[in-house]
Amino acid sequence: MTDAPSDAPPTRDRLLFASADLFRRQGYAATGLKQVTAQAEVPFGSLYHHFPEGKEQLGEEVLRRGGAFFLALYEQIGDAAADVATGVSDFFDGAAATLEATDFADACPIATVAGETASTSERLRQACPDAFERWLGALGSRLEAESVSAPRARELALTTVMLLEGAFLLSRSLRSTVPMGVARDAALHALRAATGADRETVA
Amino acid sequence: MTDAPSDAPPTRDRLLFASADLFRRQGYAATGLKQVTAQAEVPFGSLYHHFPEGKEQLGEEVLRRGGAFFLALYEQIGDAAADVATGVSDFFDGAAATLEATDFADACPIATVAGETASTSERLRQACPDAFERWLGALGSRLEAESVSAPRARELALTTVMLLEGAFLLSRSLRSTVPMGVARDAALHALRAATGADRETVA
Repeated sequence: MTDAPSDAPPTRDRLLFASADLFRRQGYAATGLKQVTAQAEVPFGSLYHHFPEGKEQLGEEVLRRGGAFFLALYEQIGDAAADVATGVSDFFDGAAATLEATDFADACPIATVAGETASTSERLRQACPDAFERWLGALGSRLEAESVSAPRARELALTTVMLLEGAFLLSRSLRSTVPMGVARDAALHALRAATGADRETVA
Repeated sequence: MTDAPSDAPPTRDRLLFASADLFRRQGYAATGLKQVTAQAEVPFGSLYHHFPEGKEQLGEEVLRRGGAFFLALYEQIGDAAADVATGVSDFFDGAAATLEATDFADACPIATVAGETASTSERLRQACPDAFERWLGALGSRLEAESVSAPRARELALTTVMLLEGAFLLSRSLRSTVPMGVARDAALHALRAATGADRETVA
């Protein structure tokens, strides 16, 4: 089963985009495939054409693409920043702006589905650590390039991602960007202390 | 509609306990009411007897009880600890032990449902910030009692809860207690720096 080349990418991408939006806002289980095709504005049958294994295949690809999208966004912001701490701070600020602009709906592309499926679907569960590990690796590499030891870089990357995920949850729930700002400051403080970018801020 | 006094508490509590377990492990949307009554080992009809408003009422009460349970657990651990930093550290260690003992299924009682419903059910959404605010208040009060200013106590409480929530997500997803340990150390570091309990650990 193949599409006419001119049709295939938009339909498949529309399905993925609509799914990602719905999963992020309301979760995986609450999202019906009819809702996906309606939001994507494609015929229902096209879903099984593009995703013959059904919802779990769609879910896995949404998680993998969402993880890759976040990674690309971070790399882009990191490349533009003067140092790793500034890049992380800019990423948190962007997350806060997106939350505010979307009435606190657009948060982490994988967290809600990760929480729902960590104990129920091995296929979906496995997509989440893969995404997290790629984020942790990207941030860890940048820290090592700023002379942080590999074990410490791993700890700092974990701390930063945990603060980001905690901030998504608290900011969405409290409908406030204050938690995201507090998380940014905590990450910035830890990263600057480790990279020596601003040692006088420690204490 | 009232129960015979001897029957009411166990049935209602069994329904709440089963729901809490299922919501925490697989989320709110994925949990069917028949699954709840089956796991609770009560007749299906007893659910609408005890929760006449149905699943949303059950969900709200599970979130409120889960929030209260975590608060009580924290207060108990905090009362037994020498200072606020030690109490938080002990709480994180307990969370890590519970994750490990339950094959990484038992994490935060409200986070997954909070993520699913933050943008979809105002009734369930509102139960989550209420729980978070009570946790933040409890930790903030203990910090103020150790001479931390109110605004700084709020920031530190937010940082601690965000690290805990991020650690639940990463530890579940990576199936490792390492993230929880890293989060504990990051929280401990921030709390000790602020309370002066162990200033020499800063830097």
